[in-house]
Amino acid sequence: MTTRDAAPGRVTLVGAGPGAADLLTYRAWRALTTADVVVTDRLVPREVLDDLGPGVEVVDVGKTPGRHTLPQEEIDALIVARALAGQRVVRLKGGDPFVFGRGGEEVAACRAAGVPVEVVPGVSSALAAPALAGVPLTHRGTTTAFHVVTGHTRDGAAGGDVLDDVSVACVTSRAATLVVLMGVAALPGIVARLLDAGAAPGTPVAIVERGSLPDQRVTRVALDLAAKRAEEVGVRAPAVVVIGDVAHEELLEVARDAGGAAGQVGG
Amino acid sequence: MTTRDAAPGRVTLVGAGPGAADLLTYRAWRALTTADVVVTDRLVPREVLDDLGPGVEVVDVGKTPGRHTLPQEEIDALIVARALAGQRVVRLKGGDPFVFGRGGEEVAACRAAGVPVEVVPGVSSALAAPALAGVPLTHRGTTTAFHVVTGHTRDGAAGGDVLDDVSVACVTSRAATLVVLMGVAALPGIVARLLDAGAAPGTPVAIVERGSLPDQRVTRVALDLAAKRAEEVGVRAPAVVVIGDVAHEELLEVARDAGGAAGQVGG
Repeated sequence: MTTRDAAPGRVTLVGAGPGAADLLTYRAWRALTTADVVVTDRLVPREVLDDLGPGVEVVDVGKTPGRHTLPQEEIDALIVARALAGQRVVRLKGGDPFVFGRGGEEVAACRAAGVPVEVVPGVSSALAAPALAGVPLTHRGTTTAFHVVTGHTRDGAAGGDVLDDVSVACVTSRAATLVVLMGVAALPGIVARLLDAGAAPGTPVAIVERGSLPDQRVTRVALDLAAKRAEEVGVRAPAVVVIGDVAHEELLEVARDAGGAAGQVGG
Repeated sequence: MTTRDAAPGRVTLVGAGPGAADLLTYRAWRALTTADVVVTDRLVPREVLDDLGPGVEVVDVGKTPGRHTLPQEEIDALIVARALAGQRVVRLKGGDPFVFGRGGEEVAACRAAGVPVEVVPGVSSALAAPALAGVPLTHRGTTTAFHVVTGHTRDGAAGGDVLDDVSVACVTSRAATLVVLMGVAALPGIVARLLDAGAAPGTPVAIVERGSLPDQRVTRVALDLAAKRAEEVGVRAPAVVVIGDVAHEELLEVARDAGGAAGQVGG
C-alpha cells in the first residue's frame, strides 16, 4: 500500500446516487478522483469506476441481497486498515451513505480507530426514483409527509413483517407517503399487511425499477392488485415502491406518456 | 424573449441540494449551463447563479417564510409562459424539487399547458444536513425507518399542530427517526406535543442549521430541553431538526470534535 502524498490517511463515505453517473455530486467526484483506493458497493454506476483511471485502486465489496460477499465487519476493518496505512479511502455507496447504507457503522469503526472520516451525502433512491417517475413524495393538498423503510431486514424478515405499526398507519391514515426501498421480495406481504390493517384497496402504488437508469420502468397499480401485477410484469430488484395518494393516476398521468428514463415526466 | 436555438421550449425542475455549490449533481449543472432562463428560489447557492454567465437570465422568485415574493400560481404561469415562448427554462429549487418544493404543482402546470417537463432530483436537506452532522437517519440495531415532515404548513399552523398522530408515533414508539424541515418556529410546539404524547424526555435531538454551508452549526440536546436550548443559542432558519435515537450522543460523539462544516465527522 502506497500513499499518494504525506497526508495522513482518511476515509470519505460517498453517496453515489440512484444509479446514473451524472447524478453524482461534484463533491463526490472530487473525493473519487483524489482517492488512493475506492471501496465500492454493487449498486453504483460502473462508468464512474471505469473513469477513475489506473491510479486509483478499486475494491469491490458489493453486496448482493442474501449473499454478502464481504461481511460488514470486514468492510469496516478494511477501510480502517487502509486509512491507518496512510491511504485516502473512499467508501462508495449506492444512494446516500446514511440511508440504509450502514454508513453509521462505518463511521463508528473509523472513529474507534482514530481515523478521520467525512461524509458526502448523495441523492437517495428513496427520493430520486419517485421524482424521475413523476411522483412527488409530498404534494400540497394531498400529502405533506413521507416515511421511508426498507423491505430487506437484517433478520431476513419478509412480507408484512418488514412493516411496523407506524409504517402501516402512514397508509391507513393517509398521513404520509410510504416509500419502501428494496421492497420487491417483500411486496406480497406488505400488500397483505396493509389491506388487513384497513388500507383502501384502491390506494395508489408506483413501483419504480432501476430508477434513473436507461431501462427505468414504472408500474402503476392499485394496492390490492400490486403484488399480482408485479409478478405479471416481472418486477425485479432494485426497485422503489411508493404507496399513497401522491402516486394517484392524476399525478402519474404526467409521467405516463413521456418515457421516464431520463427523468422526462411531461409533454 | 429569445431562444438559444430552434428547439421547442421546455422546463426542467432542478434540485439545488442543501446549500453548498459542490453538492449539485452533474446533471443539474448541465441543465443550468444550457438554460435560457433560470427561475430560482431563495435557498440555492448564490455562487451557482454567479457562475452562469451573462447568457443565462436569472429570475429570482425567492420565497421567504411568511412572505411569498411571488405567489406559486404566478411562478407556475411564468415558467409555462417562458417555455411556450420557446425558452429552455430551469426551475431551480433548494434541496429536492419534490420534497416540500411544490414541484408537483409546477409539473402539473406545465403538463396542463402541453409544455415538456423534466425533473433532476437533488440532494435533500432532509438527508444531507443530518449526514453532514454525523447523524445517520437509519442505523442498524437502532432505527430502521425515517419520517420527514415540514414545520411550515400552508395554513400557518405552528407548534404541535404541524405534527399529525403518525409523526408523533414515530417518536413515542421509537419506530422511526423524525426529521422536521423548516421546523425552527414550530419547535416549542413540537416538543410540547411529543412530551404530552409520552415521548421520553431524554429522546435525543440534533438541530442542524445551515447544513453544508461553512457556518453549519449542530446543537445536540435532549427533547425536553430542546426548545429552551434552541432559544438560548439563537437557532435560526434554515435548520433541520432530527429527533430519535440515531441522534444519540454515542453516535453524535463522532461529529462533535471535528467541526462539521465540510462534512467532517470524525478523527
